[in-house]
Amino acid sequence: MRTKAAVALEAGKPLEIMEVNLEGPKKGEVLIEIKATGLCHTDEFTRSGADPEGIFPCILGHEGAGVVLEVGEGVTTLKPGDHVIPLYTPECRECPSCLSGKTNLCTAIRNTQGQGLMPDGTTRFSMLDGTPIYHYMGCSTFANHTVMPEIALAKVRDDAPFDKICYIGCGVTTGIGAVINTAGVEIGATAAVFGLGGIGLNVIQGLRMAGADMIIGVDLNDDKEGMARKFGLTHFINPTKIEGTVVEEIVNLTKRGADQIGGVDYSFDATGNVKVMRDALECSHRGWGVSVVIGVAPSGAEISTRPFQLVTGRVWKGTAFGGAKGRTDVPKFVDWYMDGKIEIDPMITHKLKLEEINHGFDLMHEGKSIRAVVEF
Amino acid sequence: MRTKAAVALEAGKPLEIMEVNLEGPKKGEVLIEIKATGLCHTDEFTRSGADPEGIFPCILGHEGAGVVLEVGEGVTTLKPGDHVIPLYTPECRECPSCLSGKTNLCTAIRNTQGQGLMPDGTTRFSMLDGTPIYHYMGCSTFANHTVMPEIALAKVRDDAPFDKICYIGCGVTTGIGAVINTAGVEIGATAAVFGLGGIGLNVIQGLRMAGADMIIGVDLNDDKEGMARKFGLTHFINPTKIEGTVVEEIVNLTKRGADQIGGVDYSFDATGNVKVMRDALECSHRGWGVSVVIGVAPSGAEISTRPFQLVTGRVWKGTAFGGAKGRTDVPKFVDWYMDGKIEIDPMITHKLKLEEINHGFDLMHEGKSIRAVVEF
Repeated sequence: MRTKAAVALEAGKPLEIMEVNLEGPKKGEVLIEIKATGLCHTDEFTRSGADPEGIFPCILGHEGAGVVLEVGEGVTTLKPGDHVIPLYTPECRECPSCLSGKTNLCTAIRNTQGQGLMPDGTTRFSMLDGTPIYHYMGCSTFANHTVMPEIALAKVRDDAPFDKICYIGCGVTTGIGAVINTAGVEIGATAAVFGLGGIGLNVIQGLRMAGADMIIGVDLNDDKEGMARKFGLTHFINPTKIEGTVVEEIVNLTKRGADQIGGVDYSFDATGNVKVMRDALECSHRGWGVSVVIGVAPSGAEISTRPFQLVTGRVWKGTAFGGAKGRTDVPKFVDWYMDGKIEIDPMITHKLKLEEINHGFDLMHEGKSIRAVVEF
Repeated sequence: MRTKAAVALEAGKPLEIMEVNLEGPKKGEVLIEIKATGLCHTDEFTRSGADPEGIFPCILGHEGAGVVLEVGEGVTTLKPGDHVIPLYTPECRECPSCLSGKTNLCTAIRNTQGQGLMPDGTTRFSMLDGTPIYHYMGCSTFANHTVMPEIALAKVRDDAPFDKICYIGCGVTTGIGAVINTAGVEIGATAAVFGLGGIGLNVIQGLRMAGADMIIGVDLNDDKEGMARKFGLTHFINPTKIEGTVVEEIVNLTKRGADQIGGVDYSFDATGNVKVMRDALECSHRGWGVSVVIGVAPSGAEISTRPFQLVTGRVWKGTAFGGAKGRTDVPKFVDWYMDGKIEIDPMITHKLKLEEINHGFDLMHEGKSIRAVVEF
């Protein structure tokens, strides 16, 4: 069949809207009609050429929602008409990682996915002249139709709006999951969130849901404070407008108890800046502070600290897709949204047509959007 | 009173054996007769001048065992005749850290201890001319008698030999505690231990006790292998004698399961070398590897890695005194030794008189001793 897609022909160029060929689903695969897709910084990271593992031409997009049109041989858990969210982190429930119970990083199709291929080592997309177009993060949601492995699709309820729940395919789950799965924040905790963009806001609402007492947000842009307060922020710090360092500021803000040792119980980096990741670790509490890296750092960038920070009880960890097991957890997140436990609507600041997708990246660069969503 | 001590008069000089003045115990303090003390690398770190926080003149030593001679006002949990192990990490059971249940890093006397002082801000030791001599890590076990706060003494059983259980005051507890308290190793785990000295060997016996399947030891000195095998080592790697990197070697050695992803479940740095700390993190398993920093790094040295290592599920943490709460856990470790659950005797390779203490540091530098113990 043919479908319409925004194709990244080469690194650093705007996406081009065009008709492409799409082969039907092979064994274990599913054809999806994408109804809506968010634009995430990770798409832009690859589009811009900053991602050393970017492969072109490709169809970007990994934060979508849609409907099953056709299933390939052997597919048993999905049928045409099912509503689904594509998962860039699949959940096969059979590989050593899935069976470990310790991680969401399923390895079933890891190698081919990283090469822009379906599990059989080929692509389903091609240009009209036959040139293969690579898949992206196993999803390629910047196309009206896409093909994905069954294990990389979360079946969700039918009454949830595509233009909102697509955000659960990445940002919402990453932010909230970092709090509840990776950090395991408990009621009464103190926390700091660095970067109040699309991920940071979801970390904040995750912290509110987890019952945190203090939720300190850090951002260079004062305009971020207002929206963040709506999601649960209790304190805002703009590092350019304080006397000392942001670490000192947070430590002073959180001095409690007889020994007056400050520091947050949990911290989260949602910036991708390795210097900020260090601040996030070092502002956490001696003895038990847990700092979670969420942001994707530039190629080759390294985090560093004095090992004394760890020896005195701080823990440095990271999260991918918020530690969520997609087929198991994503339907639950959709329920939470429909039940009003988590908010998404205020974060979808822009709706676009596929033809306007490059404008969506402009909005991202200008800091004007939290999430721009393309509706088909 | 007067007592005999090995005094560090200034950084980088040999210790000098001399008579010193020792004031009796003040409120909340206890006078101890030290019966035996181990020589640890941390003592040497300070003696040599490498420790930027070293204060001179001082009486080093923090790995001792002895008998209570006299208790000060208000001391209720100890009486003359009690056998005790000095604790450089006290356990007051009242500060926010003790009450948190999340850390062993008691803060009750942290500030004064760091300045070489008793909790009231003065020293008990002085030269015969009256010059104050600073305490070290709150212990100063390189003296025949010392004064310590009640909260920094673990009461232990009377039938345990001082010349062995003194080692529980640091090395044994640090190594075994890193495994059972900090890492929480489970039966069947795989592990790598970097550095097979006095701490590394105790990590290894901790891993054996925890039921680890593979215990990989890494050391530049082949001579370390034999002793390590006696404590439970299953594989030995000398990084200078392999083709690739030690990380590759460990990953290849541990490839298991359908996806053939290698890496150990747990790794431990017992070297203090920041490059080795990085290897320890990076040889741990994607998705769930936990790496524990034990070694003390040179002043100013920093650890670093790509944040991707954390985002893909590795956890970087550290341990001080093996995460053990001294007054609660140290008596238990002594019981384990007396019950034959843990071994100490083969690690006490040298017995010295106080007058021979500088020779003990020579043995350490020559790599000839695991633990040299001074008996009074």
